[in-house]
Amino acid sequence: MWYTECGKDGDVVLSSRVRLARNIKGIPFPARADEKQQEEVIEKCKEALLDKKSPYHKTMYYIDLGAMEDFEKQALAERHLMSPQMLEHDKKRGLLLSNDNAISIMLNEEDHIRIQTMAPGFEIDRCFAEANAVDDLIAGSVAIAFDEQYGYLTCCPTNVGTGMRASVMLHLPAMTMSGTLSSISNSLSQLGITIRGIYGEGSKALGNIYQISNQLTLGETEEDIIDKFKQIVADVVEKERELRQRIYEAEKFSFEDKLMRSFGVLKFAVAMSSDEAMKRLSDLRFSINLGLIKEVSLETVNRLTYDVMPANIIQKYNIHDAKERDLKRAEIIKEALEKTS
Amino acid sequence: MWYTECGKDGDVVLSSRVRLARNIKGIPFPARADEKQQEEVIEKCKEALLDKKSPYHKTMYYIDLGAMEDFEKQALAERHLMSPQMLEHDKKRGLLLSNDNAISIMLNEEDHIRIQTMAPGFEIDRCFAEANAVDDLIAGSVAIAFDEQYGYLTCCPTNVGTGMRASVMLHLPAMTMSGTLSSISNSLSQLGITIRGIYGEGSKALGNIYQISNQLTLGETEEDIIDKFKQIVADVVEKERELRQRIYEAEKFSFEDKLMRSFGVLKFAVAMSSDEAMKRLSDLRFSINLGLIKEVSLETVNRLTYDVMPANIIQKYNIHDAKERDLKRAEIIKEALEKTS
Repeated sequence: MWYTECGKDGDVVLSSRVRLARNIKGIPFPARADEKQQEEVIEKCKEALLDKKSPYHKTMYYIDLGAMEDFEKQALAERHLMSPQMLEHDKKRGLLLSNDNAISIMLNEEDHIRIQTMAPGFEIDRCFAEANAVDDLIAGSVAIAFDEQYGYLTCCPTNVGTGMRASVMLHLPAMTMSGTLSSISNSLSQLGITIRGIYGEGSKALGNIYQISNQLTLGETEEDIIDKFKQIVADVVEKERELRQRIYEAEKFSFEDKLMRSFGVLKFAVAMSSDEAMKRLSDLRFSINLGLIKEVSLETVNRLTYDVMPANIIQKYNIHDAKERDLKRAEIIKEALEKTS
Repeated sequence: MWYTECGKDGDVVLSSRVRLARNIKGIPFPARADEKQQEEVIEKCKEALLDKKSPYHKTMYYIDLGAMEDFEKQALAERHLMSPQMLEHDKKRGLLLSNDNAISIMLNEEDHIRIQTMAPGFEIDRCFAEANAVDDLIAGSVAIAFDEQYGYLTCCPTNVGTGMRASVMLHLPAMTMSGTLSSISNSLSQLGITIRGIYGEGSKALGNIYQISNQLTLGETEEDIIDKFKQIVADVVEKERELRQRIYEAEKFSFEDKLMRSFGVLKFAVAMSSDEAMKRLSDLRFSINLGLIKEVSLETVNRLTYDVMPANIIQKYNIHDAKERDLKRAEIIKEALEKTS
């Protein structure tokens, strides 16, 4: 799966994503559509992508969220395959998902259609190309709401125009520790770029993981937006790398001590909350990037970051009690770290 | 060396010790003796023990504390081979030490002669027999201050009579954690028994290690005192064992978690103070006793307890900077734990 791989610039950039918001002409936005209209959205998209003529008909499948348990849906959100809003029960909702989980199309979220394409590492271009391919395919059989002057019409005015949002998931322990993140956040916002926690709007930055995304959708072409965004992300990545080296060299031993102790706790703890796991996995990621720990791969950390999430543990092991999950979580981590050492 | 071995009841009793205070007739107590008289004490004792007729002449040697660096003396005190008072520079002082460090005779401490015999585990009888043998030998060639009514005359009135103090070094993590130690301390004091920190009077109980000793030296024979003391210690040992099991079973997982995390930190920390090392080695000792950790022996913990002490590290590695010592300490621990695992 894309979210466990370590891609280009994987020491800082965990993953890239491009999202396109689209709506079907003649059907009200999901919030105002009735049940039948919501179903119509789903049927039209399924037809466009899963029909035998579609290049995706063997590599994608449909998930009916209405038929799922809450924790199953939560597990999809934990893996960023859909937004937390999709957990709500108020609409007919579905997901068109590719087998490798790199394409996920949310149906009846805020807009009728939200195409998401994801890749490990810094791969905005690849995501953009893939998103366009899916978009073209849908537009080939479904009439999309588009205005000559404004561009794509979306539920929320902030998406009108390109309907596109490019984002990357970054691991920024040095910026967090050194306290420079808020000043960077301020200067980025003037460029139309937002930094948020790992699960987007309003979420905490668990494990020093942040989502950086472009906010502008009007007045520029997709290509221009993507190019500018890539440049800004590249600057942030460079800055984080410099800071890592600087704060590490300033207090080498106390730094190593802190990180290695965290590794010891990961390897020997008997119980661990998911918040603590995220913090310690961030330390581990940092240790690997600094070359302090060589026997664990970034892929292992990526995989663990998702494996230790609550809904994933519920789904995989049927453990509904939080205390018991803490025990299982410690066990999962221990096993993963033993295998690789 | 006796202090690294694990003896009888070694899960609780680290070591046993008997000390006899003696003074030479006709010479003032060390605090009032002039330099020549202090030297006379030393010469008489050396003669008694190191002369060819002495059974100890090949197994004991003399250490002139006046010719030693402070950290070398400190290292002897860390190993309980002499009291911290022997570090002071105000008198001619020496130590008669057996090769196995199990007999240590302090010269010109508070009294002229303080015979100390030590053994791993719960071995008060053995220590008492050995102390008596040394005492008899000295008394054979040196006139000892003794009063028919009061018994042995000593500098401090609390030692007059037998001049004897029996003590054991106990690891009491459960009593410490459960907060029962102060009530036990109170009831023991009514029986003439004192609980102190690891380095005797006024010292802290580093790593949950306590010294329990008898305070009574008048009105009873040595044998009666020893028998009562042994019974009281056996009760404390039993109580500690029960408590360990009880508090462990009450909160099994959080307990294991706490102890195993401590083990992880011992194995991976890059720097560690001696106070922290003592605490974590106490956790390790506890873990071994509970059967949670099987790959490390109590002997390793005993050895580490002394190897990580500041003066020992100065002496062995010539590291006078405290921060550097913290690094070396972590390294010593890591190596010892790797070897055994």
